[in-house]
Amino acid sequence: MGTFQVQLRKTVDDSYEIEVGRSLMHQLADDLANGLLGGLRRFALITDSRVETLYAQPICRMLQGAGFDGEIFSFPAGEESKTRETKAEIEDRMLAAGFRRDCFVLAVGGGVVSDLAGFLAGTYGRGVPFIIYATTLLSAADASVGGKTAVDTPLATNLIGLFNQPKKVYIDIDCWNTLPPREISSGLAETVKHACLADREFFEYLEEHMEEIRGISPEACEHMARMNCGIKYRVVMKDEREAGLREVLNLGHTVGRAIETLSGYRLLHGEAVSIGLAAACALSVRMGYMTGEEAERVENLLDRAGLPTGIPGYIDREALVRKLYTDKKVRNGRLRFVIPRGIGAVVEFRPGVYAEEVSEETAREVILAMAEQEGAGE
Amino acid sequence: MGTFQVQLRKTVDDSYEIEVGRSLMHQLADDLANGLLGGLRRFALITDSRVETLYAQPICRMLQGAGFDGEIFSFPAGEESKTRETKAEIEDRMLAAGFRRDCFVLAVGGGVVSDLAGFLAGTYGRGVPFIIYATTLLSAADASVGGKTAVDTPLATNLIGLFNQPKKVYIDIDCWNTLPPREISSGLAETVKHACLADREFFEYLEEHMEEIRGISPEACEHMARMNCGIKYRVVMKDEREAGLREVLNLGHTVGRAIETLSGYRLLHGEAVSIGLAAACALSVRMGYMTGEEAERVENLLDRAGLPTGIPGYIDREALVRKLYTDKKVRNGRLRFVIPRGIGAVVEFRPGVYAEEVSEETAREVILAMAEQEGAGE
Repeated sequence: MGTFQVQLRKTVDDSYEIEVGRSLMHQLADDLANGLLGGLRRFALITDSRVETLYAQPICRMLQGAGFDGEIFSFPAGEESKTRETKAEIEDRMLAAGFRRDCFVLAVGGGVVSDLAGFLAGTYGRGVPFIIYATTLLSAADASVGGKTAVDTPLATNLIGLFNQPKKVYIDIDCWNTLPPREISSGLAETVKHACLADREFFEYLEEHMEEIRGISPEACEHMARMNCGIKYRVVMKDEREAGLREVLNLGHTVGRAIETLSGYRLLHGEAVSIGLAAACALSVRMGYMTGEEAERVENLLDRAGLPTGIPGYIDREALVRKLYTDKKVRNGRLRFVIPRGIGAVVEFRPGVYAEEVSEETAREVILAMAEQEGAGE
Repeated sequence: MGTFQVQLRKTVDDSYEIEVGRSLMHQLADDLANGLLGGLRRFALITDSRVETLYAQPICRMLQGAGFDGEIFSFPAGEESKTRETKAEIEDRMLAAGFRRDCFVLAVGGGVVSDLAGFLAGTYGRGVPFIIYATTLLSAADASVGGKTAVDTPLATNLIGLFNQPKKVYIDIDCWNTLPPREISSGLAETVKHACLADREFFEYLEEHMEEIRGISPEACEHMARMNCGIKYRVVMKDEREAGLREVLNLGHTVGRAIETLSGYRLLHGEAVSIGLAAACALSVRMGYMTGEEAERVENLLDRAGLPTGIPGYIDREALVRKLYTDKKVRNGRLRFVIPRGIGAVVEFRPGVYAEEVSEETAREVILAMAEQEGAGE
């Protein structure tokens, strides 16, 4: 008998750049021509049916014109597509088209596209590089920092996936002009969440500029995009593997994720998070970490962003309580919540611990006390 | 417009220990009790139908007895099970059983089990730790060093997966006593490959001790297991991400993988690699890197290991030539082979380049000239 030591200690540099601006397609081509990905010339452009004609086809044609070789792999738009099956189907199409390990993945679209494409890139040939070209406000806030990629399964959202960092992210604000108003609102939920958990001043900025932002004023939108990256970055930098601090980003997602699933995706992700944020505020008020006025101020901002803060009538509230147990923060069968402390911070319960156990009864009482929201998810 | 720098430079330590010995079950329990995985108490034991009753159940019961909480997730034995579908099915069963991110995966079995379980562990909750308890000779040689995990798809073997290092590997030689002789032979193919590509002395050791090894003499088997780990480790250490040197491990796999797929898995992996190794030697003789006598010596050793070196009659040789193009070493549509240089080394074509382009005509001629093997894959 004997042992054998495998020494695998090494330095990894996953650093990358986020470019925030307008019409960044040519910047992308320049970066690639200047060796962003070394000599790789073959791209698999992954996108969805909504973004395909608007942005994916022009980007694909332009890259082909610049001497790159690649094609578009599109799937039906919507969170319902973010599955292992869609991933497998695109893999098979890429394999059939002869893509091997000497290719890169270009994700053009919103968070569903970058989550799926980033996961796919991470396992294709055991990992090929990927780039995110973010076309939605939500993905600008959510998907461009953090390296979280995943798919949903019938039993859980985002539980199968990888930490996989892109080589570069482009946030093209011009693309936001083609977003339906409901998508813009949905995208703003993560922004309000960021302000709530980390930056009171940014919260006030949002209160002052909400109308400009919803009207896609470039200046306000660029400021917002950079603030979002900055807040998320500060959190992620300190805790890339989600050991403790990073859980703060989960604010509003305990109830949010559960309600999103239970709505059968009638609610958009941001709408569900908005309701979850309202629930977290109600819980905070109850626990004495936030005043009723502060909670109201958050609800007002969400409302002005065009987001729901009550629970749709078609959601069974007892089913919602049960669904909370599929949350990834659950430990030893106990529910855990991230709780806002006033506006601009979250409660640190113990050093490095930002999620606290909440009894099922308390969660139920908060959920039962929430208003019913008409018209949500329509 | 502006850019935002995400700095993610860090030191990663993926080092781990391989324990080679007999009846290591209690060692595993001790290691876990001594904090090998920190405080993790919940395990998902992934195994196949062949290993389940022999080893997985005793290990599971023993761990439960030692205060760990977990259960067995078994799938039908065989390379046919190494698919995205099997992975998804086990994920769903684990989710249904309430496994979240605070668990670890214990792979008990051969290479198919550790490939699948290691890949699954790498994407479950975006990564949970895993341990390999290797029960076969092949997995001792192949799966315990390198961190390569993957599944097969209809169009390619091992192309969807991850580099994912286990936290510890146990090579239990006692388990080899329950292997059918055909499995033992199959496992020896990677061993002969290792000797061919890196260690002439080890090749001679195998020539001298082949009968003892096939009879599972503990001393010879432990020596062989350690030599296998050592050779693979030296290669992997220098090239974890398979940029150049690591390709030498692909010796025999160009024809081997293709023939394995074309046989519809009638050939075991090692049998296919054995034929591929014979093909690589024939190519080497043709290219002037090996004498005919050396090639014959390799074939003799493979034969004494109980392995085929000719192509089964049911394999269409033209289909085999076409199938070569699905090899992951293909670049710009050209076939590339690793070529042995005599016995105990491979050809370094240019500095750091160990796989060379071979024309389709040359590959075809070598394949057409190979003997027909009766009884292979039965």
